[in-house]
Amino acid sequence: MLPKIILTDIDGVWTDGGMYYDENTAELKKFNTSDSGGVLFCKLLGIEVGIITGENSNIVKRRADKLKIDICCTGIKDKVKCVQDIIGGKYAWNEVAYIGDDINDINLLKMVGIKGVPNNAPDYVKKYATIRLNKNGGEGVFREFVEAILKENDKLDEVLEIYLRNGSGFIQHDIH
Amino acid sequence: MLPKIILTDIDGVWTDGGMYYDENTAELKKFNTSDSGGVLFCKLLGIEVGIITGENSNIVKRRADKLKIDICCTGIKDKVKCVQDIIGGKYAWNEVAYIGDDINDINLLKMVGIKGVPNNAPDYVKKYATIRLNKNGGEGVFREFVEAILKENDKLDEVLEIYLRNGSGFIQHDIH
Amino acid sequence: MLPKIILTDIDGVWTDGGMYYDENTAELKKFNTSDSGGVLFCKLLGIEVGIITGENSNIVKRRADKLKIDICCTGIKDKVKCVQDIIGGKYAWNEVAYIGDDINDINLLKMVGIKGVPNNAPDYVKKYATIRLNKNGGEGVFREFVEAILKENDKLDEVLEIYLRNGSGFIQHDIH
Amino acid sequence: MLPKIILTDIDGVWTDGGMYYDENTAELKKFNTSDSGGVLFCKLLGIEVGIITGENSNIVKRRADKLKIDICCTGIKDKVKCVQDIIGGKYAWNEVAYIGDDINDINLLKMVGIKGVPNNAPDYVKKYATIRLNKNGGEGVFREFVEAILKENDKLDEVLEIYLRNGSGFIQHDIH
Repeated sequence: MLPKIILTDIDGVWTDGGMYYDENTAELKKFNTSDSGGVLFCKLLGIEVGIITGENSNIVKRRADKLKIDICCTGIKDKVKCVQDIIGGKYAWNEVAYIGDDINDINLLKMVGIKGVPNNAPDYVKKYATIRLNKNGGEGVFREFVEAILKENDKLDEVLEIYLRNGSGFIQHDIH
Repeated sequence: MLPKIILTDIDGVWTDGGMYYDENTAELKKFNTSDSGGVLFCKLLGIEVGIITGENSNIVKRRADKLKIDICCTGIKDKVKCVQDIIGGKYAWNEVAYIGDDINDINLLKMVGIKGVPNNAPDYVKKYATIRLNKNGGEGVFREFVEAILKENDKLDEVLEIYLRNGSGFIQHDIH
Repeated sequence: MLPKIILTDIDGVWTDGGMYYDENTAELKKFNTSDSGGVLFCKLLGIEVGIITGENSNIVKRRADKLKIDICCTGIKDKVKCVQDIIGGKYAWNEVAYIGDDINDINLLKMVGIKGVPNNAPDYVKKYATIRLNKNGGEGVFREFVEAILKENDKLDEVLEIYLRNGSGFIQHDIH
Repeated sequence: MLPKIILTDIDGVWTDGGMYYDENTAELKKFNTSDSGGVLFCKLLGIEVGIITGENSNIVKRRADKLKIDICCTGIKDKVKCVQDIIGGKYAWNEVAYIGDDINDINLLKMVGIKGVPNNAPDYVKKYATIRLNKNGGEGVFREFVEAILKENDKLDEVLEIYLRNGSGFIQHDIH
């Protein structure tokens, strides 16, 4: 069964956990353009995408804007409650997929139907995963998660075909 | 046969796909000086070099300026049409080489004569490659692509000899 | 025996040794959010955490502030003397754990009870380690060091249980 | 025989070849603090250290200042001539060591007595190396080069002993 919504942590999933600091107030995160393909595949199939992160940072909002992801929750202490509010009466927990990498993701991983964890996460988090992923955080593991879900549902070839048939420009999206 | 022109994608080829964001408006890309050697080899043999990227970014233009690459097309939605305009009546499709790493490169890869894909690209893109490359994006895979083409044509030793005979300073180019 | 305090070097431990320079006055360091979990575990068990670095940089102070680490000694030439001042009559040397990666860490490693060295440090530093670590600097090796100490004392499961029982928000700490 | 002077390229040796660009005028290079240990060992043994790079960048000068390296030649087109001017009548070519990674280093590698090349350099450069190095550019390969030279001359243990006997603070140098 395809999930109705795929949710994702940011640090350690869309990044390798790296936080770049300068001497004053600046901070950088390094995203991977490969993950934008995962967002695109969800859009093409009508699956919602959302970001749930403990970090309270405008960097994440900028990335969400670039990829046109409407659901972007930052500074979240209680991720289960946050997702409960998002899905409301709309979706059941087993229609939700989530990928996260650390201890603050465990309670949410326990709730959702499809659970992903990057390969380099601690064993005490990885044990909750229901899909085995080979990539580490920052290497495009969100895309690998989306593709793994699509493959299980025989949808990956279909989505590639839709994309190629319509030409690269038919959907407004960040693929380079 | 040597191609008349070697074209290249940027994100995921000249970079590892990394996009560095800060909290405000800044963005960084990390290039690899190794790739500048590939551009140099093309210049020494009179092969044109061009950049075709979906990303609409001044970062790419700055890198093209540094390496004195005249053909630099950014913000391209339809890469096949873009290359059609570049080659016009000048070159045939089989005289064009291209390296790209993602789904928006597939239609162009299908058209050109020599096709390269970084080692870490998805299988559904890699299957179009006609030259096997061992490097990932950002590791100097553009240079590996150029060198592989030159080797196939017994031209790599020749170009090294030209360079060394004339001394490092004879051509204005970014090699460090 | 659990140490009373766990101390850590920064460059080459919390980072891969990378120092990012621009043309003017800026400098960046890349931290790994994974290490913040190590700090959290110490807090949950009442173990003090401190930073001892030769580098005189505000970058390190900013990271210490983010993770609410009170002991943050920068610009330290004589690390043994610095730690002597920190522990005073409060702790014995064998109640101190330290992780460092280079020759200026050797004299301190000789003094403390629990000694950690990242996997990619030179052999002439690594030989002082009493705990074998598999990660390199910047890969979360500080967290690996803390977890190794907790495991030896059968405390890792306990600390995870405390964290999960109380919910992600019960302690003010940087986990994302 | 110990060399009188150890010279080094920057991009691809002190860095992994990475050049970080933003949209405007900024550029970053990532150095590795591990290499500063190589400079320190040279100072302790009275061996001169110098930088020879084709890149015309203030970034390199800033790094040289930090490590108190007096000989810092940037924007060099003809590296052989540059080194000829540095050594003048003072040293013979076989008293010079050099490490470089690309085609603009070949002519200089041919001249000097001790030749180093990072492990990830092209084969047509690596074939000139007289010392086998295992590290890639940016991983501390300059330090590996210095240590390999010292080991060949049974000087590595001696220099470590000098450093540790005198305490970390006895020489003004950037070790963290």
